[in-house]
Amino acid sequence: MLLAIDKKRDNNFLYQQIYEGIKNKILEGRLKAGEKLPSKRTLAEQLDLSVNSVSYAYGQLLAEGYIYSKERKGYFVENITKFNSRGSNENKFPAELKEELLNKSGWLSLSHMTADISNFPFKEWMKCQQKVVQNHKAELADIEHPQGPYILRETICRMISLSRGAVCEPEQIVISSGTQLLIQQLMALQNKGAVFAMENPGYARIRNLVSSMQFEVRPVSLDQHGIDMKEIHSSKADIVYVTPSHQFPTGKIMPISRRIDLLNWASQSQNRYIIEDDYDSEFKYETDHIPSLQSLDRNQRVIYMGTFSKTMLPGLRISYMLLPPALLKEYRRRYSDAMQNGNSIMLFALHYFIESGEYARHVKRMNHRYESKRKLLIKELHKRINDRIHIENVPAGLHFLASVKTSKSYNEIEESSLQNKLELYTMRRFMLKPDWNKPKQIDLVIGFANIIEEKIPEAADRFARIFV
Amino acid sequence: MLLAIDKKRDNNFLYQQIYEGIKNKILEGRLKAGEKLPSKRTLAEQLDLSVNSVSYAYGQLLAEGYIYSKERKGYFVENITKFNSRGSNENKFPAELKEELLNKSGWLSLSHMTADISNFPFKEWMKCQQKVVQNHKAELADIEHPQGPYILRETICRMISLSRGAVCEPEQIVISSGTQLLIQQLMALQNKGAVFAMENPGYARIRNLVSSMQFEVRPVSLDQHGIDMKEIHSSKADIVYVTPSHQFPTGKIMPISRRIDLLNWASQSQNRYIIEDDYDSEFKYETDHIPSLQSLDRNQRVIYMGTFSKTMLPGLRISYMLLPPALLKEYRRRYSDAMQNGNSIMLFALHYFIESGEYARHVKRMNHRYESKRKLLIKELHKRINDRIHIENVPAGLHFLASVKTSKSYNEIEESSLQNKLELYTMRRFMLKPDWNKPKQIDLVIGFANIIEEKIPEAADRFARIFV
Repeated sequence: MLLAIDKKRDNNFLYQQIYEGIKNKILEGRLKAGEKLPSKRTLAEQLDLSVNSVSYAYGQLLAEGYIYSKERKGYFVENITKFNSRGSNENKFPAELKEELLNKSGWLSLSHMTADISNFPFKEWMKCQQKVVQNHKAELADIEHPQGPYILRETICRMISLSRGAVCEPEQIVISSGTQLLIQQLMALQNKGAVFAMENPGYARIRNLVSSMQFEVRPVSLDQHGIDMKEIHSSKADIVYVTPSHQFPTGKIMPISRRIDLLNWASQSQNRYIIEDDYDSEFKYETDHIPSLQSLDRNQRVIYMGTFSKTMLPGLRISYMLLPPALLKEYRRRYSDAMQNGNSIMLFALHYFIESGEYARHVKRMNHRYESKRKLLIKELHKRINDRIHIENVPAGLHFLASVKTSKSYNEIEESSLQNKLELYTMRRFMLKPDWNKPKQIDLVIGFANIIEEKIPEAADRFARIFV
Repeated sequence: MLLAIDKKRDNNFLYQQIYEGIKNKILEGRLKAGEKLPSKRTLAEQLDLSVNSVSYAYGQLLAEGYIYSKERKGYFVENITKFNSRGSNENKFPAELKEELLNKSGWLSLSHMTADISNFPFKEWMKCQQKVVQNHKAELADIEHPQGPYILRETICRMISLSRGAVCEPEQIVISSGTQLLIQQLMALQNKGAVFAMENPGYARIRNLVSSMQFEVRPVSLDQHGIDMKEIHSSKADIVYVTPSHQFPTGKIMPISRRIDLLNWASQSQNRYIIEDDYDSEFKYETDHIPSLQSLDRNQRVIYMGTFSKTMLPGLRISYMLLPPALLKEYRRRYSDAMQNGNSIMLFALHYFIESGEYARHVKRMNHRYESKRKLLIKELHKRINDRIHIENVPAGLHFLASVKTSKSYNEIEESSLQNKLELYTMRRFMLKPDWNKPKQIDLVIGFANIIEEKIPEAADRFARIFV
C-alpha cells in the first residue's frame, strides 16, 4: 500500500497528506523514477477518500514537477536530481546575529535626528489620503512616473519658488524616498573618477554612502563663513556638497559673500556642481527665510535638495531634488525605466496637504514650538554650567552646537550619557577626519526637537551631571 | 536719501522693501564695502516708518551677511565678492525637456505592470494607519531601523514560513521600497568582478540596474524546465537571479528537479548565491502554493525576495528580502547607518493589515477575480484568432505568454497597438540579447490584472485588429 493517511488529522487537508506522503517517498527515492502511480480512483479506494482529494494532490505534484502524466496511461514518477550536499535547517541562525531590542523607557533625547510629532495633524493627513483614494484610482493602479507624480512636482516647485526663491520647472523635480537615494542617483551619473567634496565636520552618512560608491571624498574644513574656498580650489572637486542655510552640524549660516565665492568656483568649469542640501531651512526663529543658493545661481550649477522628513515625520521618507537641465537630460537617459520608490498614496496626499495650506500651517506651528524649546534648553544649560559651556547661538534649525570645557574624553562623555539615559551625540560622529581633536573641550550636537518642554530641566540636569 | 518706499504696496511687508532695496544697492555696488548705513532710528524717520520695520530688515541683512554691526558704532556694508560670470534666468529651461502628459482616456490596458485595485479595502487600510498613529507615536518621531520595524519583520517571517515554507528569523528580513533597491543593496555587497546571471528573456529593469552598477550581466537562456543549467555552469556566475514560481515573463513554473539542480550548483562554492524573486507567487489558480526555492535550501545559498506591490497596490513600494546569515553579517557591516526608505506609517500599517487577516482575505478575493479575468481573456482571444494564437496556459500570476503567427514585425505590432489604443507589451522588451528573434511569430506578454471584465471582449477585438 502506497500511503497511510491519518483521517483524524485536519480533515480539510487530507489531500495534503497524500501530497506530502508521495512527495517525500519520491525525494527519499522510495518511489523510483518512471514508477507508475496508482490511478486516482484506485488510490482513492485504497485510502477510502474522495477522488477529488487524490486528484488535487496529483495536480499539485504535477505542477511542482514531481510526477508526469501520459495520456490514457496514467501518472509516473519524474526523474529527479538528488541533492548532492544537504545541510540541516536546525539552529543554523547564529545567536550573535540576534537583535536585542533596547528599552527606551526613562530615557530623554537630545538627538538631532528626531522630530516633535505630538502636534502633527494626522486627521488632516488622513483626509488628504482619502482625497487621493477618491481622485486618483487610475494612478494608484498603475506604476508611477520615475520622478514622481507631476502634480506633486508642480506643487513643490511653486512652494520652493515662493519660500526659497528657487527657479524651477516641475520637470526638474525628482522625488525619492530620502536624500541618500537622491545623492546615490546623482553620483551614479558622475564619471568614474569624479571627486566629491563636502563640509567637515559634516553629514557622515553621506560621506559613507559616496565613498561606498568608490568615489573619492574630500573633507573640506570650515572657517567662520563656512566651507573653506582655498581648500575647495585645491581639492580638484567636481561636485561639492554643502548645507548653506544651516550648516550640518555646526549650524552656521553661509553669508552671501561665501555663497557668491562658491557659485563663482562652480561657474569656472562645465562639470562643476554644487549640491545644496536645504535639510531644515524651514526653521528660522528670529529672521525670515534665507534665499537658497540655487536662487542666486545663474549658470545652472546648483542641485537643490529638500526634505519633508524634518517638517512632518522622520519616517515620511519624501525628499526631492531640483536638477539643472543638463543633469536632467542625463537623469532621463539613465533612469527612464527606474521605479519611483515613494509610496504613491503618500505622494499624492502630500500634494493635497501642501495645496490646502495644512503644510504651511503645521510648519508655522512647529516653528513657534521649536523656538521656545530651543530658548528654554539653552537657558537651562547656561543656568547649570554657564562658566564652562559655549553655545553657537544661531536661531535656526532643530539642533545647535555646544562646546563644554572638560578634562573628560569623548569616550567618557558618551559612556556617561548612556548611564544617565540621555541620548546625546558628540561631534565625533561628524568628524570626517579622525585626527580632528581639541584639548580640554568636548563639542556636542544638541537636538531639541523631540524632548517635551516639561522634561527640558531634567535633561539639563542629566547633561550637567555628565560633565561634572 | 538711501531708499524710496512705496507705502501703498503690501503694508505688512514694508520691511521687505527696505531689505530688498539695500540688498540690491549692495549687490549692484552702489553701496560700497565698509560704507556706514544710517542708524535704525534715522532711516525710520527718513522713510517715516516704524523702527521695527527697519530693525527687522537690518536683522535679515545681518543674518544673510550683507551687512555687519560694530558695537556702539552702527551698521556697515560687508565686503562682498562680485559674481564673475552671471547668465540670466530667462527661459533657460529647454523646451524639448517639457513632459507631454499623455491622455489615457479611451485606452484599454493589457499591461503586466498594473493591478486591479477596485476591490482594495482602503477603509481597512486607513484603520490600520489609525492604529499606527495610536500605538506607535514614539517610533514615528524617531528614525526607523535600517531593515524596517521589527514587528513587521516578525509578521512577514511568520507569513512566508506558512505560505512559502520559508525558513527565517526576523533579523534576516530587510525591508525596502522596491525590489530594485534591494538588488542594488545586495549587489553593492558583491566583489567588484562578480558575475550576475539572469534568465533570458527576463526582467530588463534588473539587467539595466545591475549593469549600470558596472557588473557583468550574463543572460542565460531557458529550456522547457526553466533556466539552462549547462549555460549557468559555463557562465562563471557568482549570483544568479531567477523567478522559479512563475518565470518572468514566460510564466513557466520551475519543476522540483531543476530547483535541485540549481541548489546543487550553488552549494558547489562558498560565494555562489541564488536570488529567488517571488514577485507574484501569491496568485495560483488551479493548484496550491508552490514551496519556495528557499524552503528547499539547506546551505543558505538562496536570497528570497517578495513584494506587496502586486498583491496590494503597485505604488505601495514595500518589498523585502530574506538574507542568509553570512550575507546578513555583510549587510549590517555595510548598512548600519543607512536610512530605511519605506514610509514608517505604511510599514507599521502593513503589520496590522497582515495580522488582522485583511491581507490574506484580500489576496484570496483577488485570486478569484484574476482567475476569472484570465479565463475570459484567453477564451475571447481564442474565439477571434484561434488558428494563429498559442497561449502558454500556466494558471498562475498576473500575465501570460502568447505567440501569434503573423508576417508583421515587432515595430508594426507596437505601432498598431498604439493606434488601437491598446497598452500591449511584446517580448522585445524582455529580450536581453538583441539577436533573439523568431520568424513569422510575435511573442507577447499579456497582463489581465487591470482590465475591467466587461471590457475584455473589446480588448480582444482590438488585439485581433492589430494582428489582421
